[in-house]
Formats: sequence, structure tokens, C-alpha cells
Amino acid sequence: MVSGRQVESGNGPIRLGMVGGGQGAFIGGVHRIAARMDGEFELVAGALSSDPARAKASAAELGLDPERSYASFAEMAKAEAKRPDGIEAVSIVTPNNMHFPPAKAFLEAGIHVICDKPLTSILADAKKLAALVKKTGMVFVLTHNYTGYPMVRQAREMVAKGVLGDIRVVQAEYPQDWLTEKVEDTGANKQAVWRTDPKQSGAGGAVGDIGTHAYNLARFVTGLELDTLAAELTSFVKGRLLDDNVSVLLRFKGGAKGMLWASQVAPGHENGLKLRVYGTKGGLEWTQADPNYLWYTPFGEPKRLITRGGAGAGAAAGRVTRVPPGHPEGYLEGFANIYAEAARAIRAARRKGGKLSKDVIFPTVEDGVEGVAFIEACVKSSKKNGAWTKL
Amino acid sequence: MVSGRQVESGNGPIRLGMVGGGQGAFIGGVHRIAARMDGEFELVAGALSSDPARAKASAAELGLDPERSYASFAEMAKAEAKRPDGIEAVSIVTPNNMHFPPAKAFLEAGIHVICDKPLTSILADAKKLAALVKKTGMVFVLTHNYTGYPMVRQAREMVAKGVLGDIRVVQAEYPQDWLTEKVEDTGANKQAVWRTDPKQSGAGGAVGDIGTHAYNLARFVTGLELDTLAAELTSFVKGRLLDDNVSVLLRFKGGAKGMLWASQVAPGHENGLKLRVYGTKGGLEWTQADPNYLWYTPFGEPKRLITRGGAGAGAAAGRVTRVPPGHPEGYLEGFANIYAEAARAIRAARRKGGKLSKDVIFPTVEDGVEGVAFIEACVKSSKKNGAWTKL
Amino acid sequence: MVSGRQVESGNGPIRLGMVGGGQGAFIGGVHRIAARMDGEFELVAGALSSDPARAKASAAELGLDPERSYASFAEMAKAEAKRPDGIEAVSIVTPNNMHFPPAKAFLEAGIHVICDKPLTSILADAKKLAALVKKTGMVFVLTHNYTGYPMVRQAREMVAKGVLGDIRVVQAEYPQDWLTEKVEDTGANKQAVWRTDPKQSGAGGAVGDIGTHAYNLARFVTGLELDTLAAELTSFVKGRLLDDNVSVLLRFKGGAKGMLWASQVAPGHENGLKLRVYGTKGGLEWTQADPNYLWYTPFGEPKRLITRGGAGAGAAAGRVTRVPPGHPEGYLEGFANIYAEAARAIRAARRKGGKLSKDVIFPTVEDGVEGVAFIEACVKSSKKNGAWTKL
Amino acid sequence: MVSGRQVESGNGPIRLGMVGGGQGAFIGGVHRIAARMDGEFELVAGALSSDPARAKASAAELGLDPERSYASFAEMAKAEAKRPDGIEAVSIVTPNNMHFPPAKAFLEAGIHVICDKPLTSILADAKKLAALVKKTGMVFVLTHNYTGYPMVRQAREMVAKGVLGDIRVVQAEYPQDWLTEKVEDTGANKQAVWRTDPKQSGAGGAVGDIGTHAYNLARFVTGLELDTLAAELTSFVKGRLLDDNVSVLLRFKGGAKGMLWASQVAPGHENGLKLRVYGTKGGLEWTQADPNYLWYTPFGEPKRLITRGGAGAGAAAGRVTRVPPGHPEGYLEGFANIYAEAARAIRAARRKGGKLSKDVIFPTVEDGVEGVAFIEACVKSSKKNGAWTKL
Repeated sequence: MVSGRQVESGNGPIRLGMVGGGQGAFIGGVHRIAARMDGEFELVAGALSSDPARAKASAAELGLDPERSYASFAEMAKAEAKRPDGIEAVSIVTPNNMHFPPAKAFLEAGIHVICDKPLTSILADAKKLAALVKKTGMVFVLTHNYTGYPMVRQAREMVAKGVLGDIRVVQAEYPQDWLTEKVEDTGANKQAVWRTDPKQSGAGGAVGDIGTHAYNLARFVTGLELDTLAAELTSFVKGRLLDDNVSVLLRFKGGAKGMLWASQVAPGHENGLKLRVYGTKGGLEWTQADPNYLWYTPFGEPKRLITRGGAGAGAAAGRVTRVPPGHPEGYLEGFANIYAEAARAIRAARRKGGKLSKDVIFPTVEDGVEGVAFIEACVKSSKKNGAWTKL
Repeated sequence: MVSGRQVESGNGPIRLGMVGGGQGAFIGGVHRIAARMDGEFELVAGALSSDPARAKASAAELGLDPERSYASFAEMAKAEAKRPDGIEAVSIVTPNNMHFPPAKAFLEAGIHVICDKPLTSILADAKKLAALVKKTGMVFVLTHNYTGYPMVRQAREMVAKGVLGDIRVVQAEYPQDWLTEKVEDTGANKQAVWRTDPKQSGAGGAVGDIGTHAYNLARFVTGLELDTLAAELTSFVKGRLLDDNVSVLLRFKGGAKGMLWASQVAPGHENGLKLRVYGTKGGLEWTQADPNYLWYTPFGEPKRLITRGGAGAGAAAGRVTRVPPGHPEGYLEGFANIYAEAARAIRAARRKGGKLSKDVIFPTVEDGVEGVAFIEACVKSSKKNGAWTKL
Repeated sequence: MVSGRQVESGNGPIRLGMVGGGQGAFIGGVHRIAARMDGEFELVAGALSSDPARAKASAAELGLDPERSYASFAEMAKAEAKRPDGIEAVSIVTPNNMHFPPAKAFLEAGIHVICDKPLTSILADAKKLAALVKKTGMVFVLTHNYTGYPMVRQAREMVAKGVLGDIRVVQAEYPQDWLTEKVEDTGANKQAVWRTDPKQSGAGGAVGDIGTHAYNLARFVTGLELDTLAAELTSFVKGRLLDDNVSVLLRFKGGAKGMLWASQVAPGHENGLKLRVYGTKGGLEWTQADPNYLWYTPFGEPKRLITRGGAGAGAAAGRVTRVPPGHPEGYLEGFANIYAEAARAIRAARRKGGKLSKDVIFPTVEDGVEGVAFIEACVKSSKKNGAWTKL
Repeated sequence: MVSGRQVESGNGPIRLGMVGGGQGAFIGGVHRIAARMDGEFELVAGALSSDPARAKASAAELGLDPERSYASFAEMAKAEAKRPDGIEAVSIVTPNNMHFPPAKAFLEAGIHVICDKPLTSILADAKKLAALVKKTGMVFVLTHNYTGYPMVRQAREMVAKGVLGDIRVVQAEYPQDWLTEKVEDTGANKQAVWRTDPKQSGAGGAVGDIGTHAYNLARFVTGLELDTLAAELTSFVKGRLLDDNVSVLLRFKGGAKGMLWASQVAPGHENGLKLRVYGTKGGLEWTQADPNYLWYTPFGEPKRLITRGGAGAGAAAGRVTRVPPGHPEGYLEGFANIYAEAARAIRAARRKGGKLSKDVIFPTVEDGVEGVAFIEACVKSSKKNGAWTKL
């Protein structure tokens, strides 16, 4: 049953700033809802756009104090660090190439960071950031939001407890269809423009945008470490500069094998992230579009459908469950769970020497390094005709 | 496509109070998340429990100013009406028998009301409330929350546009299983206690708790008016004072026929609200547990799956859609849509003479009267061995 | 696992005749495939149509000896009874009003009967037939074919073993859409013509054609006996002489309650027979369109999906399973199972005093009487404004 | 709509023999049901087992004339070729290594061959057989039975008509779980013994048994030709001699890309063959376990569910459809469709110079060569660490 986990902590919300996420953006609004959902954060400052007019208009729309709407992240980091009521944490929701500079600036300013994925557009920056987090001791949360779904937590817990036995096969996929045609040329879709632009996205297209989510999810649930991969990246749409379809064979340490498919040109798939894991004793299947269900298939027994909040769900899922079974929670709740975990970590950090419960789970800067390494390895393997490549 | 409807209005959140919803309650927490999701409301006062200690503790947990945690709704109505920064609206989330008194008090104090369903525990009170709303001109929103789901709005729009032709058959059902055993006796489940107690719930058990949701949904989507009904109420669990299973035959004005089934003793159903509508040209099917999908079955053509945010979804759904297709929205988002509509109505009321767009839809006090009339008619019909009964 | 139940008995197929089922018919061809599937029957004679030319052409198409293609069932019964190699059994696949006369003739001629449902078009005839079967001791099999599906057998076995506890609620439905428009007027659809004609079908339209299947299935699985019913029959299509939509409330002996819906005007439903049963310990759900699956929902545990041939399936299903799980069996296999059971009964009858295993299950003439009684009770109740009516 | 395609040809069934398929076998019984279903074949002779006692007992069980139960296929080919009522066709249902010798013998004896897949256990034999078929002009049908499903025919027709535009991505998979443990050691499962034995199966395990089905299906539906592949074969179960999991990357001529996964160690999958195809204009998805449905996803429109016999199904599916939509057809009907096509080809061959309609489709000896080439290429690629390999 539901564990009544609701946060709504009484000792005041965490003061939050945001970099990016102005008008026309997608993920910024998602971060704001996620931050609001449990009453743990209050958005008080922003550098919402690199375009000053858009930044100002966006801030007004959000009811920010005009004084705390900044023209640049650098200015914001500097000013907020000085204020007694300055932000304690910042959300970075810019295109990939603009994750590193603000992340660095805020960490150095002593402000916790919640950063969208992938961590950076090149691996070298990702490693620098990891080192900086280690050095500063600040909280750094990467929004691989799919790890926030209760049934994903459930799957992870089941694997960790050995319910599946030894893992043999991992099948991850993330098909979408929104780039089936060359929408980046129309200009109408701001998302399409930057996500297909190597300057803003880095070397990976589909592999960076969604393949990295699928890979992160596979790691999160199975706990397996990748040994090598063989990748085939394709740009199906003529003139597109980055891959829009990627097929990867995976060899994990310890002998498990896997396949990963990510595509943005697969008509009929809106956001088809799916993970299937098979072990010596049973299997699991989870689909993002129907996130409240987890198929558990013990070998030699009927399939079982575990539901969020239901009888078969354990403590790891219960912690991040808001409403009873049958009342579906979705993408925003899953995203909000990452924010709720971030809040727990930040509140623990507030209490100097405060211990964070080991039940609290969020994607870290190290996960981010792993993700960027995955992207770079895929690109490298594909360039070498699919040669097996180490991360 | 998604219409970027996000609210997050800049001119300050609406000050909200709450009656009920203290520790151990279920629906209060849901209302609070719903109120927070779009940044439209700020909870600033509460009479959270009739138990003073629980009220106080609950208020502290929510970070309310202790001064604005009241011992009774009456006190709260009085005090808040006087404050310059007093609440503009109140959420009433108490058991059914405690909807009428606070609703009356707040309306009379000039405070808008958002009230849980069913409207009241007896029809006479419901009618009084409707008259009072009319007289005061205050905003009154009944949280038949399922009408907030985008795909329910889509279904309504399609019926209204004649896509289904003339409606012939309506099949509504709402099975659950949580009362399969006599949990009200254990005391552990506070929900079970009051929902099976005629003093707190009124004359209807399952019919009042969930049957009324199913009936409201059927009316909302089809726009049909009920003529008469024949109902069979059963208490399967020995010693239970209210019905836990209800079967109803429906005759609508104009000739359409329907069936409605609600049960709390149907193992395997967590929260199985489903509506199916059939007309001369096609059919629709929607299931609450998978709310982002709407099956549309034009006669003589392949079935089509319309998805929230997807190509087949129209303006009515787009208005209340937050994230792109494939990123599932759930129960809380649907609930929050009712709050967002309430916010629009309250903001229009702020502007004296402000017009409210007719696109804004929420369940009204009249819908509440209809719902209580439905419950009473079912109870009456069942007592007369299923005789056809007018509302 | 699969029990290798294949029949293919070596001591020669059973010689079969057929009444009806000539060109343009639907169910005759189905019976022939079902009879052939396990190699248990050989079609050797027929009175395939009341139209002599059609009868002849149909017989030629099927490769019958022209001498054994008869102009009438009466002639066939007489002639075949005399032949040393005469038919041992006959399949009657005519419209409802033409079940009784040939059934009577063949039983009296000492020929076993396999008869399509409903048994007869009026109850008096049904009772006469039941008496005649008793008197003659012949095998009489009614093709309520849905009872032949392995997962239906599985459901019945689970209920009989008490897996569901005491049954409380039974929800049966059988929606179709093929009579949404008045196709009987076009003449193109021979099925539609006779099935909407009271002279050929009897007093029931949808209730007789498919409602009776749903009712039979509910009885077959639950073993419950109906006490009374309240029915609402509607003819939605203007000018249609029989009901095309029927809603029924059911009260079973012992206190269980139920609902039954059958419709031929529900767009999107091809052949939507579905049964749901709920008891004190768990529930079951089976859908004809996906017949290899049975949902079993033990109260307080995750839902389980039992599959034909799979680990959770028992002996009753195994007996009638041909191929391993995951290799879907369908409508024709289910129908063929009724024929295979008929073959076992006929072979047992061949051995004078031969005992028939009690595992062998098929719908009997008594089930047929019950079915016709159900139709008549529904018609009667509906005429009395839905009054509760005994069977 | 259904095209009333039933065969049941009047001019006498085709006399059929069988090699293999004695007691304890699986696929032999399936072939016999398939052959019987449309009344097109009559089994009259057999060399049912290499074990004489088993051969004899099996023949008796099937009611064969003892004289036509042969001790070896060679004897049978010789004897039957001489009889005036000798078999016209033979079904070969032995383990893979025993396909070539009897196929050769019967073709040389002037008897048509229906042979189980894969064609042979080595490519050289496959090519010899293809040459022999060409030389003799006999009918040779390979039972890649999944191509017999109506919705697979529908998919093929849609691709051929350009409904999907240019094909970009093909995702084929065929997971099973029956070899999750080392059942071949128990001896209880005759299937497991020979299918994991390189001497009987050839060099491929899962890749040969089921991977080749998935590959054949992908080719059948898309019409694409494979250029090169990169494969990873794994034997997860300790001591197993052949692969039980295979992952393959595919590059088709013309630029389409694909992935293929076959596994026999994936708990929860009974027989999970699935094909997904994505083009510039839309996608298709078909799942063998639910074969009456075909998802068609036109880009930018709601998904559509095409059903066997339903409004969206075309002529290619209608030809091989027996019963109306909603009356599910399954594995045996699909298999029987291959036999029905074989019957049409054999009847055309009976009429010297008889033309075979080009609508008649069945897997040929050339498809068999392609399949064996696929297996060998996968084995070769995997041995070379997944190097890209030509067929």
C-alpha cells in the first residue's frame, strides 16, 4: 500500500533559480512543475534566456521579482551568491553545450545544481564537472528523470534483491517519431533546431538525446557495468547533421548481453522508452508510456502485473508514490520525484554534517560522466564501422 | 499538438484555505498537490481536522502560519473574511456530511468554494447550496476530477461535434476492490470507516462514493439527460451498512439507454472507472487507469487510438495538456486541471464584470445537485425492488 | 504444459451429415472445419439448403456423393437411417426456427445430433426436444462453442475448486456492431436477414443470437443458477423487428448479482464476448477476442495472466489444448473442441454401455432449454417494463 | 470484409505422406491439423519414425493402412511412386539434418514436397535442393508458417503498395523462454534434445530454430534484401552446445537498417515473434501471439488497429481469412494457409501447364536457401567477433 510519503516539508521551501527555460522552451516548464509539486522549492531567480527581451518577458510571466531576472547565468551566480536570501540551488535547463559553463559557475559559487541531461556535450567537460563536485561537496543532481518512476525503482529493487537471478539479457529501446521529417528546417520547432545541431547538442543526435536515457535506465535498474559496445548510427533524414537512429550491441561485465535501439524516425512512437531484463529466474518489462505497470515474469509461473501502490510493490517504490493504485501517476510525478530527492539531499546539506538516508536515490554527476562516455563511445564505434569499443 | 497552455500566472497566486485534509486523510493531499501544480494557488490557512491536536500538527507539517490554523471552519470563515490578506477561496475536503455546513459558511463570507464530491449527503442541502451560489454569485467548483482529464475533454468535444452521430448506448462502470473485506472494522483504514458509515456518507455507499463519479462522467461526455433509472444496491460484506455494489439501468431523454456498474468488492480493480459511448456513426472508450488514450471507433473503419497531445486530439484537450504525447499525465494532472479552471474563474471574478471564456469548464453546484439526486434515486429504486425512478 | 491431447483416433472417423450450411451460410462452414480439425468426423451426406439448386451446388463443392445430397432433412433422415454406412451423427446449422423439426427427426431415426444454438425458437419445442433426448438416449450436443475454449474451461475449473471463494458478482457482455445500420434491407447479408426476422429467429434478436451465448458462458463458468432477471430490450434501428440491444440485471440463487449486456449496434466491437467474475477471494476476466489469456486477480496480490498451455493452466484446459503456449489457438479450435467432445460421447455410445469420462464436457439439450427460457424471460420482462421475472 | 475464401475443393483431396512426426513429436501433429483443416489433403502413408516400433504405433494411432507405414523414407518414396494411388505430396517434419535426404528422394521420385524449416542444416545441401527443385519442376513448399497469417499478408501488401513510404528501420524479434534451464539433459523434452544438438540442428541454435523465422518474416513483409549483418551469438546455459540468444545488426540493400533478436532464455516470452517496420510515411507492428491485429501508424495521424476480416484489411489478407473479424484465428489457421497455398500449387501442377494465380504465396526453396545462408552468416560473424558479413 501507499506509504504516505508526501513531503510538503514545513521548514520552508528551498530557494531555486533557473538557467534557461524561457518562452518556447519545453523542459524548463517541466522542471518548474516538478519543483512545485511537493512544495519543496520556490523559484525566485532566473536567467531564463540568452535573449534579453525573452528573458524579461519570461520572468514576468512567472512572477519573478524583476530584480532577480538576470541577463546571464554568470551575473546571476555572482549576485545570488551575495544575497542573504540568495538561491540555494539552480536548475540548468539549457541546450547540452550550455550545461557545463553555468554548472561550473554555480558550483564554484556554492550553489547546488540540478542539471538536465546529458551532462555536457563533450566528455572532457563532464570529467571536469565531476571533479568539481567532488572538490566543492555541493549537491549535484542530473535529471535522468525516468529513474524517478516508482515502478523503475521497484524494478531496481527486485534486481538488487536477486529476484531475477543472474541477469543475462538486457533489451533497451527508446523510439520516437517527431523527427521523421526535417522539421528543423521549418524553424517552428525550437526543440528540433538545437537537438539536431552538433554545435549545441554535441556529437550525438538521437544517441545523446534519448539513447543516453535508455542506457542510464538499463544501468539504473540492472546495476550492470558496460564493458564494450558496437554501434551503428544513421542519419535517415537527408541533410540532417546528427544521427536520428542508433542500434547498439552491448557486452556487460560479467557476461550479460544487451541491445539498445533509439530512434527519432519511427512513426507511431511518441516517447517509447522501454526496458526488458531477463535473468536466470525471471524477467521484467517496463514501458514509460504506461509507467504505473511493471510486468514481472517469474520463470515457470504465470506473468504478474505489479502496479504502483499495489500489493506487489515494495518499499523503494512506496517511497516515491503519491496516490493509491489505479490513480495513475505520470511523467511529471516521476520528474518531481527527482526534485523531491534533490530536496532531501539539499536539506541534509543544510544541516552541516547531516546524513542523507541511503534510500534517497538520484542520478549523480558520475552517472552523467558515464552517459557522455556512452555517447562518445557510440559515435566512435559507428565511425569505425561498428567496432567493439570500450567506454 | 500541445498548445503550451501552461498557466503559472504572474500576477500572484490565489490565497487558499482548506477544511479537512489533516494527517491520515487521502483526498486533502491530492487537493494540495493539484492546487500547487500550476502555481495558481498558495495554501495559507486551514481548519485541517476536527481534532485540535491533529489540526495543529497538520498545519505545522504544511508550514502554515500557526495563527491561521483554525479549530473550526466557522472560526476560519469569520477570521479570514476580515483579514485584508484573507483567503479568496477554500477547499472543502471533509466527509460528505461535512460539505454543506462549511460550504454555506464560506459562501456567505464571500469566499469562493472548491468542494469535494458528492456535493452533500442529502438532496435538500444540495438544493440549498445551489440557491446560495446563485444568490451570492460566488465561484463554486465541485471536484468531479475525472472531467479534468484531457481525453475526457476530447471525448466530450467529439460527441458535441456530432462525430458519433446520435448516441444510442452508454456503458459506465467504476469497479474497485478495496472493500472486498470488512476493513472498516480494523480501524486502520480511516477512509473505509467514514465511507461505509451512513452518518458521514449519506444513504449511498459505493453509489455515492464512486457511482456518482461514473454518472457524472457519462453526463459530462454525452451531454445526455437522464429520464429514469432502475437500480439494485447490494451490501455483500456481512454487516456493512451501505451498499458496496450497485447495478443500474438507465433511460436517457431522447431514447438512449445505458448501464452503470459500481463496485468496491471486485478483486483486481484498483480504480476501474471506464466509459463507453456508442452512437449511430461510431463509438468511444476511455479508461481512467490509462487516461492518456481514447479509443475512437468510427463505424466501418479501423479503430483509432487518440492520444493526449497527439495528432488526433483537438482544442478542448489541448487546453488542459501540459506535456507532449507519450509523456503520460495522470490523476494529479487531471485533478490540477480542475484547480486551474477554478483559478481562471476566480481570476475572472477578481476583475469585476470580468468575462470567463466559455472554454473554461468545471463541475458546478448544479452538477452536484444532479449527483445527489442520482444517489437518492438509486437508493429509492433499489428499496422498491428496482422500480423505474425519476431523478 | 501441453498434455498432448490430440485425438486423431485410429478406428475410423464418425460419419456425419449436415442440415443447412449451403452456399452463403456462415456457421455451416465453421462446423465443417471444426468437424475436420481432429480427424474425428467425415462429412458424407447433406441437406444443405432448402433451395434444391443451391443444395446440389453446395454438395458438389464439398465433394459429397450426389446420391447423398438430399432435398430435405426428412428424406435424409429416412434414407441414411437405412444405409449400412449411414451417418451416425448430424449437424444442424439452419436458422433457429428450423432446429426443432430436423433435431426431432434425426433423434427419432437413431442418429446423434449436434445442433447450433439457440436450441429452438420457442420454449415448448425446447422442452419436447429435451424429453426426446432423454427417451432415445441419443447424444445431443448444442454448439455453445465458447465453452470449448481452453481458458474458459480453466476459469470453470478455478471457480469449481473454490479459488475465487464465494461468487458475488458476474458481469457478462457481448457487444457487436454489424447491425449498426439496417443491413437486413440490402439483401446482401443473408445472416442479417434471418437473424432480424422474428419468424426465423424467434422472439429474441440480439438477446437470442448473442445474449444467450453470454448467459450460457456465465452459467458454464460460475455454475450459478439464475433466480430472476430484469431486462430492457431495445430496437435502435428504425423499423427493425427484433431487439438489437439488451440490458439485463441478474439475481442468482444464493445471492450473487450480475449484469448482462448484448448489443449489435456498438461500433468498434466485432465480437466482444467478455466475462468477469468476482468472488470473496479473487476475480477472473476472459475476453473472447483474445482467448488464450485469462486474468486471475487474487485479492491482495498482483494480477496474474494465465495462458493457454502455460504454467498456470490446469488439467481442464490441458485436455482441450492442441499447441504450446504462445502459439495462439482461436475460434475454430474452440469450436472443434466441442466436436471433439461430441466425438468422445459418440464413440462411448458406440460401445454399448461404454462409460463416458466425466472430464468430457459439452453443452447439452438441458443447457439449450435453459437458454431458450432465458430468451423468453428477457422478452417477457422487457414487455412488463423490466419487471423481475423467473426463468 | 471476409471473402468467403473457403477451399474444400470438390475434386478430391490430395494424397499426402509424412516423414517424421511420430509419437512425442510436436510439429508433425501441427502439420497434420494444418493439412486437414481445409479438406485439401488426406494423409495416406508415412515413415513416421526412425524407430520401427514407434513408427508402427504412430501409424496405427493415425489410422494409416499398415501396408503404407514404412520403415524408412527411402522405402516409402520408392513404393509410393509405383502405386497408382500413391502419394502426390509428402510432408517432411524431421529434425533439420534429416530434411535434405528425404526431400531429395521424394523430388527425384516425382513427389511434391512440403518441408519444415530451416531447409537444411548446411548451406551446400540447401543449394543442391534448390537446383533439384528447378530441374524437376516439382512443387516445394517450406513451412515458414508465420507468413500464412492474414495480418502478415496484410502488412506485406501495405508495404508493397507504398503505404509506409521508403522503409528505413526494421526491428524483428523472437524471444522464448523454454530453454532458460538445461532441459535437454532431463531427456523429458525430446524437442530440447535435438534442437540443442549441433549434429541434428546444424551450426545454429536459437538463430536456426527461431532467428531464421524472424529473418524470413522481415524479408517477407518488407521485400528488402539483406546486404550484410553483424551477429553476436551466446550460449547462456552452461554446457549448452548451441547459441540460446542471438543479437544481430542488419544492413539492407538500399540503406535500411535493422536489428534482430532471438532468444530462448527470456523468461515470460512463450513465443514472442514480433515485427516492426518504419518508413518515411508510417509504421507497422505485428505480434504473433495476437495475430489478428496489425497496428498501422501513419505519421502524423492517430494509430489504427487493423483487424483480420475488418474494414481496413485488403485482398491479400481476405484470401486467407476463414471467419469474420472478432472470431480469432490462430497459429493452426496460419499454418493451414500454407497448406492451402500448397494445395493450390499442387492442383495447378496436376493440370499440366496449369497456371498458378500470382496471388498464391508460399515460402519457396529459395527462401530456404536464404534462411540457411542467414544462419551461416550469423555463425560466421559471431566467430569473427561480430564482423560485418555478407550472406
